[in-house]
Amino acid sequence: MPLAWGRNGADMIIIGELINGTRKRVGQAVADRDERYISNLAAQQAEAGADFIDCNPGTVGDAEISDMQWLVETVQAVTDLPISFDSPNPAALHAAFEVYQTDAVPMINSITAEQEKLDALLDFVVESGANVIALALSDQGMPSSAEDRVDASASLIGVLTEAGVPAERIFIDPLVTPLGTDSKAGCSFLGAVRAIRDQWPAVHLTCGLSNISFGLPQRRLLNRIFMAQAIAAGLDSAIMDPLDAEMMATICTAEALAGCDEWCTNYISAARAGRLA
Amino acid sequence: MPLAWGRNGADMIIIGELINGTRKRVGQAVADRDERYISNLAAQQAEAGADFIDCNPGTVGDAEISDMQWLVETVQAVTDLPISFDSPNPAALHAAFEVYQTDAVPMINSITAEQEKLDALLDFVVESGANVIALALSDQGMPSSAEDRVDASASLIGVLTEAGVPAERIFIDPLVTPLGTDSKAGCSFLGAVRAIRDQWPAVHLTCGLSNISFGLPQRRLLNRIFMAQAIAAGLDSAIMDPLDAEMMATICTAEALAGCDEWCTNYISAARAGRLA
Repeated sequence: MPLAWGRNGADMIIIGELINGTRKRVGQAVADRDERYISNLAAQQAEAGADFIDCNPGTVGDAEISDMQWLVETVQAVTDLPISFDSPNPAALHAAFEVYQTDAVPMINSITAEQEKLDALLDFVVESGANVIALALSDQGMPSSAEDRVDASASLIGVLTEAGVPAERIFIDPLVTPLGTDSKAGCSFLGAVRAIRDQWPAVHLTCGLSNISFGLPQRRLLNRIFMAQAIAAGLDSAIMDPLDAEMMATICTAEALAGCDEWCTNYISAARAGRLA
Repeated sequence: MPLAWGRNGADMIIIGELINGTRKRVGQAVADRDERYISNLAAQQAEAGADFIDCNPGTVGDAEISDMQWLVETVQAVTDLPISFDSPNPAALHAAFEVYQTDAVPMINSITAEQEKLDALLDFVVESGANVIALALSDQGMPSSAEDRVDASASLIGVLTEAGVPAERIFIDPLVTPLGTDSKAGCSFLGAVRAIRDQWPAVHLTCGLSNISFGLPQRRLLNRIFMAQAIAAGLDSAIMDPLDAEMMATICTAEALAGCDEWCTNYISAARAGRLA
């Protein structure tokens, strides 16, 4: 294993997070069936460079099923990007697939290493042929150390690959926890990313990163610096707001530095287009 | 060895690089014996958080010796910070020590793993009791891969510690090379930093980092993102401009994320003082 890690040109996989019904304005749009608002959010994220459009109805029970289907239909009417179906509810995920017509392989967001949840979703993940976000959350609860994260990830990767899910479709989320309540939260996450990247080079590593700065000042700065560090450690995907231009500039720069941008072609193009200013 | 690395609260050691006679205005001040200009540069860097004040006369031959002595006398008159004597010339380094009166242990900047240079300086480094910057440059020339950097560093650490220099006084510089001419320059450097940090936890790791962005656009952004990544990899010192407020904010943030700032005390203080805005 060489000492220097590099992704050899594969771009960061960005899962656009804005269509999330727990955000007040989006929840309202879902309730009102405000097609224009949701279509706009999907189109803007696609334009900004998202690779998946996440759809989270933010509702529960029967409403969630029809809300999810409406979101999927609304989004796929304006973009060919694959959708990330964001729900812990197997019925809502099934319902999403029923109406999904885009060619690109969608994402199931998410499963965990908790036995009950895994039992409820594993067969569906395998049969659907979808990508899957697998959270490093086990029956022991939220991970604390780097080792906790690697253990839960190892267990998920083992179960998924044995069931027939190829490594390339697995997006491990080692789970970011707040730095404000644990000074080692950042380096524990980064240590886990490095270890997982070393041991399973073909799996993807993703996360929703803004949790790191919860409760601290200058959150956007902290989030950007952490993203740069996580990319150098081996992160190759993120669940994020692609309209955040400063974060997108950070990602482009961090990828060039991580050896993922031959001749710095993407970096130089982005600079010329004014996207790094 | 735990997966998550953290420096446990030791602050980044900043070597203020501004008093360098190869910079036109500084070279002029050295030639003119412009005490006010040099004193100001020393005081400003001290105020901004430098831990060492580098002095590089930027001249050669006999002039270098008297210029170095004048710089050291001028700087120590305005600050109690230790000085980093920056010259490849053993005579200039000896001359610097002759006039050095500050209590704090100074820095010799620098030695390399090139046999001839090592022969010329090793005894002096040992006897002086100074800190020393050791460049990962061997008789094989500039390092290219992470492995080259680790090999040259291992050789330097071996020679220095055997000669009696404690690890805590050794500042390894794995050498940053331009990303624009080698897309793996960033990850090779970072891989070397991680490997050296793992293997020799007590040595310091430093660098002059701006070489990474040579020939590329948006250099300051690239330098900042690389600093964040290098700190997460284990860098604990830098030869830099401490008056660069954006870089100093990046360092403060990166250190908190790397687990070096218990309860984020430094980070929160910096935010309150407006130093992260």
